[in-house]
Amino acid sequence: MSTSVIILAAGKGTRMRSSLPKVLQPLAGRPLLGHVIETAKKLHANNIITIYGHGGHLVQSAFAHEKVQWVEQAEQLGTGHAVKVTLPVLPQTGQSLILSGDVPCISQDTLQKLLDASANTGIGLVTLTLPDASGYGRIVRKNGQIQAIVEHKDASDTQRQIKEINTGIYCVSNAKLHEWLPKLSNDNAQGEYYLTDIVAMAIADGLQVSSVEPERAFEVEGVNDRVQLAALEREYQADQAKKLMQQGVHLIDPSRFDLRGKLTVGNDVRIDINVIIEGEVELGDHVEIGAGCVIKNTKIASGTKVQPYSVFDSAIVGEDAQIGPFARLRPGAKLANEVHIGNFVEVKNTSIGLGSKANHFTYLGDAEVGAGSNIGAGTITCNYDGANKFKTTIGDAAFIGSNSSLVAPVTIGNGATVGAGSVITRDVADYSLAVERSKQFAKENYPRPQKIKK
Amino acid sequence: MSTSVIILAAGKGTRMRSSLPKVLQPLAGRPLLGHVIETAKKLHANNIITIYGHGGHLVQSAFAHEKVQWVEQAEQLGTGHAVKVTLPVLPQTGQSLILSGDVPCISQDTLQKLLDASANTGIGLVTLTLPDASGYGRIVRKNGQIQAIVEHKDASDTQRQIKEINTGIYCVSNAKLHEWLPKLSNDNAQGEYYLTDIVAMAIADGLQVSSVEPERAFEVEGVNDRVQLAALEREYQADQAKKLMQQGVHLIDPSRFDLRGKLTVGNDVRIDINVIIEGEVELGDHVEIGAGCVIKNTKIASGTKVQPYSVFDSAIVGEDAQIGPFARLRPGAKLANEVHIGNFVEVKNTSIGLGSKANHFTYLGDAEVGAGSNIGAGTITCNYDGANKFKTTIGDAAFIGSNSSLVAPVTIGNGATVGAGSVITRDVADYSLAVERSKQFAKENYPRPQKIKK
Amino acid sequence: MSTSVIILAAGKGTRMRSSLPKVLQPLAGRPLLGHVIETAKKLHANNIITIYGHGGHLVQSAFAHEKVQWVEQAEQLGTGHAVKVTLPVLPQTGQSLILSGDVPCISQDTLQKLLDASANTGIGLVTLTLPDASGYGRIVRKNGQIQAIVEHKDASDTQRQIKEINTGIYCVSNAKLHEWLPKLSNDNAQGEYYLTDIVAMAIADGLQVSSVEPERAFEVEGVNDRVQLAALEREYQADQAKKLMQQGVHLIDPSRFDLRGKLTVGNDVRIDINVIIEGEVELGDHVEIGAGCVIKNTKIASGTKVQPYSVFDSAIVGEDAQIGPFARLRPGAKLANEVHIGNFVEVKNTSIGLGSKANHFTYLGDAEVGAGSNIGAGTITCNYDGANKFKTTIGDAAFIGSNSSLVAPVTIGNGATVGAGSVITRDVADYSLAVERSKQFAKENYPRPQKIKK
Repeated sequence: MSTSVIILAAGKGTRMRSSLPKVLQPLAGRPLLGHVIETAKKLHANNIITIYGHGGHLVQSAFAHEKVQWVEQAEQLGTGHAVKVTLPVLPQTGQSLILSGDVPCISQDTLQKLLDASANTGIGLVTLTLPDASGYGRIVRKNGQIQAIVEHKDASDTQRQIKEINTGIYCVSNAKLHEWLPKLSNDNAQGEYYLTDIVAMAIADGLQVSSVEPERAFEVEGVNDRVQLAALEREYQADQAKKLMQQGVHLIDPSRFDLRGKLTVGNDVRIDINVIIEGEVELGDHVEIGAGCVIKNTKIASGTKVQPYSVFDSAIVGEDAQIGPFARLRPGAKLANEVHIGNFVEVKNTSIGLGSKANHFTYLGDAEVGAGSNIGAGTITCNYDGANKFKTTIGDAAFIGSNSSLVAPVTIGNGATVGAGSVITRDVADYSLAVERSKQFAKENYPRPQKIKK
Repeated sequence: MSTSVIILAAGKGTRMRSSLPKVLQPLAGRPLLGHVIETAKKLHANNIITIYGHGGHLVQSAFAHEKVQWVEQAEQLGTGHAVKVTLPVLPQTGQSLILSGDVPCISQDTLQKLLDASANTGIGLVTLTLPDASGYGRIVRKNGQIQAIVEHKDASDTQRQIKEINTGIYCVSNAKLHEWLPKLSNDNAQGEYYLTDIVAMAIADGLQVSSVEPERAFEVEGVNDRVQLAALEREYQADQAKKLMQQGVHLIDPSRFDLRGKLTVGNDVRIDINVIIEGEVELGDHVEIGAGCVIKNTKIASGTKVQPYSVFDSAIVGEDAQIGPFARLRPGAKLANEVHIGNFVEVKNTSIGLGSKANHFTYLGDAEVGAGSNIGAGTITCNYDGANKFKTTIGDAAFIGSNSSLVAPVTIGNGATVGAGSVITRDVADYSLAVERSKQFAKENYPRPQKIKK
Repeated sequence: MSTSVIILAAGKGTRMRSSLPKVLQPLAGRPLLGHVIETAKKLHANNIITIYGHGGHLVQSAFAHEKVQWVEQAEQLGTGHAVKVTLPVLPQTGQSLILSGDVPCISQDTLQKLLDASANTGIGLVTLTLPDASGYGRIVRKNGQIQAIVEHKDASDTQRQIKEINTGIYCVSNAKLHEWLPKLSNDNAQGEYYLTDIVAMAIADGLQVSSVEPERAFEVEGVNDRVQLAALEREYQADQAKKLMQQGVHLIDPSRFDLRGKLTVGNDVRIDINVIIEGEVELGDHVEIGAGCVIKNTKIASGTKVQPYSVFDSAIVGEDAQIGPFARLRPGAKLANEVHIGNFVEVKNTSIGLGSKANHFTYLGDAEVGAGSNIGAGTITCNYDGANKFKTTIGDAAFIGSNSSLVAPVTIGNGATVGAGSVITRDVADYSLAVERSKQFAKENYPRPQKIKK
């Protein structure tokens, strides 16, 4: 049976107090709606129909790269109205999952169960059993069969004891949606068309209403304000952390770990407190990430140790490297095995060969460094002339004295030596020494500057 | 009616195990007593009378700038005795709030309600309803009216079921204080004068005792040891974080956010994990503060992004600037719009013009940089001669080559260029190039230093 | 009576998903087994017998320095079998504590109470009362005396109401162990020898079974997977943090504090959020450690303030020093009183005298700096020639201009001055000025490099 996913994403989210439409607010670095679309894609939905309204242009732009059908809900006249506007593009056969763009954590598993449970009945919903269900629409059952959904304000005292609630996530046969939605009425206090009413229609039609419960309650939590967003962020992060620990990752404190993207790990990876992982990151066996590191779109091979407060973006690091603390790898940093990068070192668009070292206060930008070279403290590749960027090439087994300036384009040969403090503007031949330095001048009994009276 | 605030601040706080008097211990960066005085000021109290005892000199010094009347309680003979020593300076009319210097979070709202509730009755107190009231003085009521306060040890089994407790925060008419306090007795096991006894006096006089409850329980929590102080710090911080989120701030993790002062925010401000805000800080619309930043007494205008681990103190940052990671702004740093400050850059007492960039390893101290200039990696303003500090002036559209030393006082003109690695001691004219550099010397087949045998 | 400690440490820990044997997984930076051995040593155990199995070689190597007797359990046939393999080396007299290498937090106090309680009865165990004991072996008592331990699956409905459970920690007379263990049977569903059966034997022998409860539940928590390990790490850290606060340490957030070793503190020490303490660290009176610092094997004397994100390893810091932010002290850094180390400064194997300052971007390696000297921003000691390391000596009251390179071995005399940007290769006499610098060259109307078209 073909599967459609309908996502309600038209709400403004006034309580977020933001210029951004609610469904674009980020959870774990990705817009709320992005989580729902991602889940829809994992379900191999045949079509994903997203209903936009407030800030529709922004919402569509944010997902321009996704294969999504956009349907506008010009006026917000209730959830039933929202789904109704999709009818012109909704297939006549198959079934549809109806999801909310502000309920980002619903899982593929739960939805698959809902699809399966609803395939024969024609309608199903996700329910949740809560210790305190006060305020929510209750699921009224008789002999286990769903009889009605009763809103809290309409519920009898007995019904208010019910702890099973409606989460607003449905699976309905498209044929039924085409039949029921045009019949929805807005004859109620709010003057809105409620999607919930289709459950009453189904029961009136003698259909059995299926239901499934999510494994974890936070899957069905919605986000209406920043407080809820922050709370859901923590639940989402805790869930991700737990999964990583179950895979064998040694997280020193799972409540101080943030994964905003996808982390692939080898065995015995150790991640210290307050690490942030962003984008796509791969960590090989026995990799250790020190406290406070921020690692984005980076691959780190086995055995590498990263010390605290290192910040990486779009880098590739080989095996058994030693990096940090306070190392900064920027896009295009490519470190071979056993490279050492020490404190206050920045590497950008630069490859560094096997076992080479830059242990302190160095800027390597637009450079290529061979194997076994030593870059002294304070070395700077002067890669920019104010208009263009140029390349610095350093061979194998070179020794760059401290505080040197390598003015690109320039090549330092294999086995070459640069004297400390030199400004190197011309190429240095293999195995040669280059020095740029004046004579050291001395003046005895030098009268020190005195404090000037003001 | 005139309002006095009486603050009990004489306790030593032995259990804090500190050389500092208890009321000077900081909560969110401010002494406990400072919080109470601040709240008293918000209530526009006509006079604030603080009772000091242990470490009185330190306490008075810490609040020398505040308009507070100090009354010494030489011996600590109980809470009733403490308030009694204020009688010589206490007005005969009006009403007094009686607060504790170690109950820092009592809110203006709660106290205003207490003042209002007590205006006609002559006496009121703040009570709290707890799930487990064990150990506390219970509020005994009959037909809703307070009949007595019964200490836990004196309470009957029935009274011990009572969940409403006395918090020790009172509002009393000054006339009554002048009448009741001299009558207090210390004829009890501890030989102390208890302020609580005035409630019995009020009831004996036929007065109705008013009461209010605080909105949040932590308002009436006292601090006796470091464990309680840390717990209250977290409750206070959580409350502040919640208020900011309600204003629309996107806090990635409210439990990892510390505000020690006052934060003013625009719309859509995003604050990542472990940020500390100190003193008075203003963040404009769409400002983003990266993980682990410490921002003190600083203004940051709209659209500016600060990357992780940047530490600012007394700086002013314009719009759409890009700063960090690992940027250090010290007092007097003043960045115009669109300035870029990169990693391992320190700026002190320096203004930087529109769109200028210092992207790596730079120290700008006592300098003035124009617009559109580029300060190369490793540039240092040599602002100190060991005795005096001098100014470096850099014009618009200047280009300072990497690893340059600018020996102040010195001026680099508009459009001027400084060659990499130069030590600039003389002014550089507009649109000129200045280089300080020797000839690069080369020695072929240079024999590398060998490991010396020891 | 002599005390033996028998530690079960043969388990593989499959659920940890690690190549490391379970008992080598670290809690607070120390292997689980290390915690148990440490506690055994505090009890002055006469012998510590550790039963190894999986990864035995790794386990033994990790504790090669400890006086431990190793007994191999080649096949894992149950807890009873494990203890049985120790019989050949177990003394005939005295008593034995039977502990688990994966229950690391059992306290000296609890074990001492168990030893005392079991001295006369011949057998005792640690029990725990839980709100929900489901799944655990229950302690069945009659008139307060232990009658049996009943596993959950074998328990009657009434027995399942029991909330007191067996923790698997025993104290048994060695004579009884020699008597009972050979009689253990593996005639059960799992075909294993259960240590628990000795309790039944003791009761059958008419012995009274003693019991004690730990003060804190986490003492008896075992670790089977990463989720449990992380949870126990937090409980352990919270307990350590609480003890420090009770000693008077001002921890801004005890849930963001990690102690992996031993911390000795003076009075009024203040530790901000996210500090990590490793190894042996001493902090004097009024020391302040800023947010995010990582301090390892370091002594810091009274009055010193360390600003955020400073990383220290094996350093010694005097009184009233000011350090950081972003300071890096590496092994052998030895700072006298009142030294100032500023941002982005690295100190390694270097002593710095009274009141000397290195406030920005400096690398001091293998150096000796006198008192009252000022090391300018960007100064680098060039201590390495690619093969050897040499010493830099700087006298008292020296002034090293910014961006200088001091090429070791070299001596800068007392009161000497080095001009900014100099490369110093020869010694500088006392009170003299040394400069290495060319003439500043100027070219008017310099045509700036233009963007090259590609």
